[in-house]
Amino acid sequence: MVNYPHKKKATLTSEKNISFGKRGMSFEDDLTKSNEHYLAANKAVIHKKPTPVQIVKVHYPKRAAAVITEAYFRTPSTTDFNGIFKGRYIDFEAKETSNATIFPLQNLHEHQVNHMIEVKKHGGITFLLVKFSKFNEIYLLPCENLAKFWQEYKLGNRRSIRREEFAQYGTKIPEGAFPRIDYLKVVEELFL
Amino acid sequence: MVNYPHKKKATLTSEKNISFGKRGMSFEDDLTKSNEHYLAANKAVIHKKPTPVQIVKVHYPKRAAAVITEAYFRTPSTTDFNGIFKGRYIDFEAKETSNATIFPLQNLHEHQVNHMIEVKKHGGITFLLVKFSKFNEIYLLPCENLAKFWQEYKLGNRRSIRREEFAQYGTKIPEGAFPRIDYLKVVEELFL
Repeated sequence: MVNYPHKKKATLTSEKNISFGKRGMSFEDDLTKSNEHYLAANKAVIHKKPTPVQIVKVHYPKRAAAVITEAYFRTPSTTDFNGIFKGRYIDFEAKETSNATIFPLQNLHEHQVNHMIEVKKHGGITFLLVKFSKFNEIYLLPCENLAKFWQEYKLGNRRSIRREEFAQYGTKIPEGAFPRIDYLKVVEELFL
Repeated sequence: MVNYPHKKKATLTSEKNISFGKRGMSFEDDLTKSNEHYLAANKAVIHKKPTPVQIVKVHYPKRAAAVITEAYFRTPSTTDFNGIFKGRYIDFEAKETSNATIFPLQNLHEHQVNHMIEVKKHGGITFLLVKFSKFNEIYLLPCENLAKFWQEYKLGNRRSIRREEFAQYGTKIPEGAFPRIDYLKVVEELFL
């Protein structure tokens, strides 16, 4: 029996409560807006890391900016977002899925999960945010629960995390206007 | 009169003590190696952020990896390195200069200095590391002292920081083998 520290009763939003108000803006954009709000409100300093790119060829034209003419996407070795909140180090990965029922674990990289486990070991706050775009639902899954699902995945006993499992082992982020995604409210409740 | 909290007597290495042993390996590579050492030794989780790139065109060939065929370097809005050390958020910028006597402040971006000031406000540990490659000397300059030099720079009263000023208002990082640049030793002495 695996013990999930953040386990609680499943409470899923009825599918009738779907909000389509935020379609068109990506999850990443919404998070960036939320982080800008947190920064302006003096609440936290959290930034998205740039996409890791392997630069191969750069062209330096006269009187113009350098142009990268050949580059490749690299596998990220850490997570997408990190920063400081109430003096604590915070570090998380954010993923969106169009799948209605499951989040496939192949959307994460081994390096990212291992990085999160390291961060937790060193006293940081770390978690996964997953958006189910069909329902406009966002869940925060603490690292220790993700690590257990990941272990099952590595053993070949699991390929994905079900939406109900996010509700059960994670916490739904309440919808808002300012900021759009008030994930630090949930972080405060869970970790501080 | 400006007050520099970390002021102390200048102690410069004699120019005869120059070590050329580490030429060929960049400052950034050395820092990455040091961070790998810290991670393996369970001391800290600190990573370099990827270079920020604005991707314009991507080519998706059949049976091969996507190729970025047009991209531009963006101005970084934060610093190069961040992570967690002894439960504390740590954030710093690293620069190398071939200049023997000064570090020109135009090597830093306004955004980066403002980011460091924000981090400090939120309780993080933040500083600038500068390597004078001619002498193989690396100095750690705490954010509050950098902020004061930067203020003078913005007012047009200063264009650079002199090497002696780094010795006076910062701390020299001792040379080592494992890790090559043991900057966390100095962080521990100054901030913890």
